[in-house]
Amino acid sequence: MEIQSFNPPVRTLMGPGPSDVHPRVLAAMSRPTIGHLDPAFVAMMDELKVLLQEVFRTGNPLTLPVSGPGSVGMETCFVNLVEPGDKVIVCRNGVFGGRMKENVERCGGQAVMVEDAWGEPVDPEKLEAALKANPDARLVAFVQAETSTGVESDARALAELAHRHDCLVIVDAVTALGGSPVLVDEWGLDAVYAGTQKCLSCTPGLAPVTFGERAVEAIRLRRTPVQSWFMDLNLVMGYWGGGKRAYHHTAPVNALYALHEALLMVREEGVANAWARHRHNHEALRAGLEAMGIGMLVRPEARLPQLNAVLVPDGVDEAAVRARLLERFNLELGAGLGELAGKVWRIGLMGYASRPENVYTCLTALESVLGEMGAHITRGAAVAAADAAYREA
Amino acid sequence: MEIQSFNPPVRTLMGPGPSDVHPRVLAAMSRPTIGHLDPAFVAMMDELKVLLQEVFRTGNPLTLPVSGPGSVGMETCFVNLVEPGDKVIVCRNGVFGGRMKENVERCGGQAVMVEDAWGEPVDPEKLEAALKANPDARLVAFVQAETSTGVESDARALAELAHRHDCLVIVDAVTALGGSPVLVDEWGLDAVYAGTQKCLSCTPGLAPVTFGERAVEAIRLRRTPVQSWFMDLNLVMGYWGGGKRAYHHTAPVNALYALHEALLMVREEGVANAWARHRHNHEALRAGLEAMGIGMLVRPEARLPQLNAVLVPDGVDEAAVRARLLERFNLELGAGLGELAGKVWRIGLMGYASRPENVYTCLTALESVLGEMGAHITRGAAVAAADAAYREA
Repeated sequence: MEIQSFNPPVRTLMGPGPSDVHPRVLAAMSRPTIGHLDPAFVAMMDELKVLLQEVFRTGNPLTLPVSGPGSVGMETCFVNLVEPGDKVIVCRNGVFGGRMKENVERCGGQAVMVEDAWGEPVDPEKLEAALKANPDARLVAFVQAETSTGVESDARALAELAHRHDCLVIVDAVTALGGSPVLVDEWGLDAVYAGTQKCLSCTPGLAPVTFGERAVEAIRLRRTPVQSWFMDLNLVMGYWGGGKRAYHHTAPVNALYALHEALLMVREEGVANAWARHRHNHEALRAGLEAMGIGMLVRPEARLPQLNAVLVPDGVDEAAVRARLLERFNLELGAGLGELAGKVWRIGLMGYASRPENVYTCLTALESVLGEMGAHITRGAAVAAADAAYREA
Repeated sequence: MEIQSFNPPVRTLMGPGPSDVHPRVLAAMSRPTIGHLDPAFVAMMDELKVLLQEVFRTGNPLTLPVSGPGSVGMETCFVNLVEPGDKVIVCRNGVFGGRMKENVERCGGQAVMVEDAWGEPVDPEKLEAALKANPDARLVAFVQAETSTGVESDARALAELAHRHDCLVIVDAVTALGGSPVLVDEWGLDAVYAGTQKCLSCTPGLAPVTFGERAVEAIRLRRTPVQSWFMDLNLVMGYWGGGKRAYHHTAPVNALYALHEALLMVREEGVANAWARHRHNHEALRAGLEAMGIGMLVRPEARLPQLNAVLVPDGVDEAAVRARLLERFNLELGAGLGELAGKVWRIGLMGYASRPENVYTCLTALESVLGEMGAHITRGAAVAAADAAYREA
């Protein structure tokens, strides 16, 4: 088998992630590798913690990037906070709530499910009923930004309910962080995990996490050891904590360079400005799509600006459209997952990909490909509609 | 706190890893990110599997890079192969055997320890005695290349003993792969994990693993679910296996570009040539050090060519020497770990760092700094000794 160096095609990434990585971040990633205990590296790690605290809006000392994808961030939260026999209320309104249930059960916990339809946010009343029915529950887990449906749930309200019933919360903010507000301290979120490959404009492979005081105390009071050696925060903190660094594992040095640069760019823009940017580009995309006659899955007040679940027009082969967009325009959109497969596209406007040029590229490419396929859409109206949305913003 | 883009110093990495990363690999890492389900990416993944099979010398279909550091590779082997109550014989002759014990216990298994001194290889007779005393053991775990001591154990002999007693083997080849022979099929190794940041000249963050037929069958016959969702090979294979790719987690796209390029370079050199190169550079370094009057910890027949545990001369402050080498020559050597702290340096000649220019840099820099500190060494003899070793090779 003959194998050459891999030169990837240059895509515009408007799926559910990874999203476009900024050239500054790619350049940072290719700087020379240094040792993971090098004094220069350790100083960089300290900066990285500060930058993560800023984007999470927290003063939590236990804030760090886990050396693995978002799924490892999720598992880190569960293996440290769930002990065998623990009852955990898990809110499920998409793929990732289901994955949380798996995590609880693999830790020996009992998951009590609060179910909402795919495309709907978590219903606080259902959570409250579950909390009342399960006074022995210790934890509530929910997804703030459901990547599988483009829905945002009200993290502040859900956390408040959980706390009123003496539960800690584990929050999935993978698609939220950097794209819409994640106010860890103001909302009192106890354990939060995120990803780098969504609204931070960084490469995939790291999972920022943050743990508040109550969560740290709960970990300290565990009756049983954490089942994962790699994810045991007692050990991880020996390396990421202050003072003398103890070797735990070899950090993914170059990936951390990339995250440092990506977070620095968020700081330069201002995270509140980044949230506004994500909102404006979302409004323009939505206006353009609606002008074409294409609707959204999620009702307006629960829409994530960074991830748009868009209804596939009747009679259209959604996979053929995506293949053609990739072929003709190097444009990647996401497919629907699970029960939404075939019914929606997921159009991401995340991080560096959340730019007016991408909004227009997407609208015009979709109009062209759908026209080519004979779909019933309104032609020629999308750009003006997007223009109007930008003017209003 | 003011924070700038991070521009790392340019070091020569001759510690226990990460080792120097080849510029081709760094360049590959910074190519544009594409989607983890992009057809171009999936084709690259197929090539990556072939390249990994080549360097592991195996035809195992279940060969892939785990999306995490070497420690995640280790844990992937243990969580998939150990079930609660299983008895596992763990050979310990350094740090990483101890970590294996931790892994067994966190899976609910019982670790039976075979102990050898730090700096000694695993004694096959002790393993045989343990196998005879524990006929109910199901697994034997050992470290082929102990990164903490620079010792190579005889993987072929240990695997043969284990198989004779109906045990599968889990082998740590983190520091071995690419630097000295790891013949997975010929030696019948059942589950092997490695790292990218040692002899493959690649950045840290991925863990190549391979599982043979017997191991796959053992995983298939498990009575209990794998305790880790992220590391459950039944799920991981849905993404890395052939046929239709099921989403499991977002692959660390750019890190995989880097590994692809690094493995392609191993293929271009020929892995047997790479082993010879590691041996020749080791001989030259050893000869130069001995000419200075500096000895080796490990007896000749058990030395890893890629990782040299070197005795610190009497009365020398080893940490001060390393700090000075970093300051004056941008040269990183490794410290001793555990009971070897303060007693040895670990000098890596791994992957791209295993080059004559690095051997001479290290010898001359050490001579200079030790001279500066008034250590009792023989001066002026190292280069000629290294020259002679290269001529003999």
